[in-house]
Amino acid sequence: MVLSNSETIVIMSSESKSSISESSTPISAKPNNSRFWSELVQELEPYVPGEQPKIQGLTKLNTNENPYPPSPKVVAAITEDVIDHLRLYPDPSSGRLKNVIANHFSVSQDSVFVGNGSDEVLAFAFQAFFQQSAAILFPDITYGFYPVYCGLYGIDSIELPLADDFTIKLSDYEQDNGGIIFPNPNAPTGIAIGLAAIEALLQKNTDRVVIVDEAYIDFGSESAVALVERYPNLLVVQTLSKSRSLAGVRVGFAIGSPELIAALERIKNSFNPYSIDRIAELAAIAAIEDVDYFESCCQKVIATRESTVEQLQALGFDILPSAANFIMAKPSVFSAKELFEALREAKILVRYFSKPRIEQYLRITIGTDEEMQILVEVIKAIQSNV
Amino acid sequence: MVLSNSETIVIMSSESKSSISESSTPISAKPNNSRFWSELVQELEPYVPGEQPKIQGLTKLNTNENPYPPSPKVVAAITEDVIDHLRLYPDPSSGRLKNVIANHFSVSQDSVFVGNGSDEVLAFAFQAFFQQSAAILFPDITYGFYPVYCGLYGIDSIELPLADDFTIKLSDYEQDNGGIIFPNPNAPTGIAIGLAAIEALLQKNTDRVVIVDEAYIDFGSESAVALVERYPNLLVVQTLSKSRSLAGVRVGFAIGSPELIAALERIKNSFNPYSIDRIAELAAIAAIEDVDYFESCCQKVIATRESTVEQLQALGFDILPSAANFIMAKPSVFSAKELFEALREAKILVRYFSKPRIEQYLRITIGTDEEMQILVEVIKAIQSNV
Repeated sequence: MVLSNSETIVIMSSESKSSISESSTPISAKPNNSRFWSELVQELEPYVPGEQPKIQGLTKLNTNENPYPPSPKVVAAITEDVIDHLRLYPDPSSGRLKNVIANHFSVSQDSVFVGNGSDEVLAFAFQAFFQQSAAILFPDITYGFYPVYCGLYGIDSIELPLADDFTIKLSDYEQDNGGIIFPNPNAPTGIAIGLAAIEALLQKNTDRVVIVDEAYIDFGSESAVALVERYPNLLVVQTLSKSRSLAGVRVGFAIGSPELIAALERIKNSFNPYSIDRIAELAAIAAIEDVDYFESCCQKVIATRESTVEQLQALGFDILPSAANFIMAKPSVFSAKELFEALREAKILVRYFSKPRIEQYLRITIGTDEEMQILVEVIKAIQSNV
Repeated sequence: MVLSNSETIVIMSSESKSSISESSTPISAKPNNSRFWSELVQELEPYVPGEQPKIQGLTKLNTNENPYPPSPKVVAAITEDVIDHLRLYPDPSSGRLKNVIANHFSVSQDSVFVGNGSDEVLAFAFQAFFQQSAAILFPDITYGFYPVYCGLYGIDSIELPLADDFTIKLSDYEQDNGGIIFPNPNAPTGIAIGLAAIEALLQKNTDRVVIVDEAYIDFGSESAVALVERYPNLLVVQTLSKSRSLAGVRVGFAIGSPELIAALERIKNSFNPYSIDRIAELAAIAAIEDVDYFESCCQKVIATRESTVEQLQALGFDILPSAANFIMAKPSVFSAKELFEALREAKILVRYFSKPRIEQYLRITIGTDEEMQILVEVIKAIQSNV
C-alpha cells in the first residue's frame, strides 16, 4: 500500500480545473513500457509529489513549505562574486558545510553526511543499510517515499499499523528486521515520539540500522541526535527545506556514527560526487549559522499552529496533536474530500489523502497568521452556507 | 581496470606536499567494513574526482573547468527576490528549463531529461537501460565513472581497447551487448568521432541503448542530437559544467526518444523528484539562452587550445588531436610523472593518470591565454634546467 500513489488531487469541475491547472506542469504518468527499459524501470511505482501549481493569488498550504523567507544572511551570502565563480566545481566533500553542521550539533565532522535534499540522503541510506535478507519495518501511514525506495532497491518491507490514536507503537518494531525507519514527528499525522521510547527501541535493536527521519523535528519535538554517540546503528536525517526555509535549494543531512556516514559517502561517491552545488552549500551554511532567525521562525510557526488549532476546533474540527509545521484536521460538517474541493474552488490548496483511516482528514500546512486567517474565514463561510 | 582508481596524485616531497594539501579537503577512503553495511556498499569502488585544492595563486588546469565566468545573464537571473523565494520547492518537472533546452536543440519537450549534473543523468541511465543479461561495452581508456556505475548497479561490462592512435574503433562494438556508452569526444584523449561512424553503429545496434556522452562536444565536434529522431535507442547526454561555465551549479541533461526519457523520469521520481534546485534551474536557463556568450567562450577556448598545442609541440610535446577543452600531451624531455611533479612544485595543477598507455601523457585543461602562457613559460624553464 503506497501512500504516495493513493494520494488524490480530486477531479474538479471543468471550469475550476482549467483555471487552476492551466499553468502548472504536472508530472505525466507514462504507463507504456519500452523494450529498452530495464526490468526495474518497468516495475517501478514512482513517488508523486504534492502539486506545485504556478498560480497567482493561491493560498498554498499543501506541501509543508515554511511561510517565511530564508535568513537575510542567505541573501547576503549569494553575491555576484559567488555567481561569477560558478565556473568552478563545488568542493565534493562539502567540507565547510559539514563543519558548520558538526559544530551546530556538537558532533564530529565524520559523523555528518550531506546530500541534495533529504530525499537523496534517504535514498542512499536505503541502498547502504536496508538491502538485507530480512524485511525492513516502517509505519503503514507515513512518508510515501519509503515504499518507493524499497521498489527502487528491491528491499522487502513490512508496514506496521499505527495505533488507534494514530501514534507509532514502537513496541511492534521489536521483531526480526532488516532495518527500521520512521519519521519523528510522523508525517502526515504530525504526532511525535519521545526520546525515551526511541532509546528503548535502540536498546533492543542493535544489529540493524534504525533511521529517524526528522524532517519536521524543529517545530516542537526532541531530536535523536542526542543518542547518536551511544548507538552506532542510529542514523538521524534532517532537512533544511522546512525549518530553515530552503526547500528551493535542496540540502539535507544525516548524523550518525562514522561507520554509517562512511557507507553513505561510498554510495554518494559512486553516484554523483558533486551532489551539493556551490550556492546550495553557501545558503545552507548561512541558514544554519543564523540560529536566532531560525528559532524565531520556528516559534512563529508553532504559535500560528496553536492558534489555528484552537480556531478550527471551535469550528468543530478534530485535530491530531501536531509537533510539525502542518496539522491533520478532520472536519465535522463536510467530509474531508468535500472540504478539500470547496477550499480549492476558493483558491486554498491543502492536501487530501484518499487512503483508509486518514481519508477523513486534511493535511494543512501552517502558513502565516494572515494565510491561516484566510483559511479560517473561508471555512466559516463554507460551513455557514450549508 | 578502473581509470578513476588508478589515477594518482603523486606523493610530493614533504615540503611541497604540505604546502599544497594543507587547505584542501580530500575525500577520505575509509577501507574498513561495518556489519551495518549492505553487501553492495562493502564491494563498491567509488570514483575519485580530480583534486579541488583551495589554494590562492594556483594555476588550476586539472579538472576541465571553463576559464571564463558564466554568462552575465546568469548573474542577472539570480536576484534577491529569487533567493527570498527559496522557501518554496522547485518545480519538480523543471518544465521551464526543459522547454528552453527543447527549443535550443529543436526537439520536443518530452525528448529532454534534466538532472543534478550529467553524473546523475548517467547514473540514472545506467540503472534504466544497462541492467541487462548481456555485458555493456565501453572503451578501456575513457571516463572513469562508467565502471563505478557498473559496480553500483551490478552491471557486467567489457572494456574495448582503443586503437593504437587512441581512437575508439566503433567496428569493435558490433557484437552482442547490453548497451553501449562512449564519450564524444572521448576523455581523457580528447579525440572525437564523426557522426557518420556513430550512425553506422546505430544502424547495426538497434536493440540496446547507445549513450553518447557529450560533455565536451561544444569545443569542436558534431553532436549526435541530430540523430535522435531517427534512432529511438540513442541517448545523448550533455552538461552545463564545461561549455557553459556552470560546474558549480550541477546541471546536466539528456536528449532522446520520449520512451527513453520516460524511463529516466521514472527513476528520478523514485529517487529524488526535486533534484534540480530553483537557482540551478534559473542559472541553466540564462546560460542556454545566451547563445552569443556561449559561442564566444567556446571560440576563445578553441583558439587558446590551438595556440597552446603549437607552442607545446615546439617544445617537443606529442599531442593527441583534441576536440575538447583539454589536451593530452606527452613530454619528450621528462616523463609525464616527472613533469607533473615539477609543475605542481611551481603551483600549476594538471592531471596525471598512472595507467598503461596513457601514463606518458598529461591531461591539461585549457585555461585563459594568460594561464597557458604561464604553463608554457614554466615548462620552458623546467626544460632549460636539465
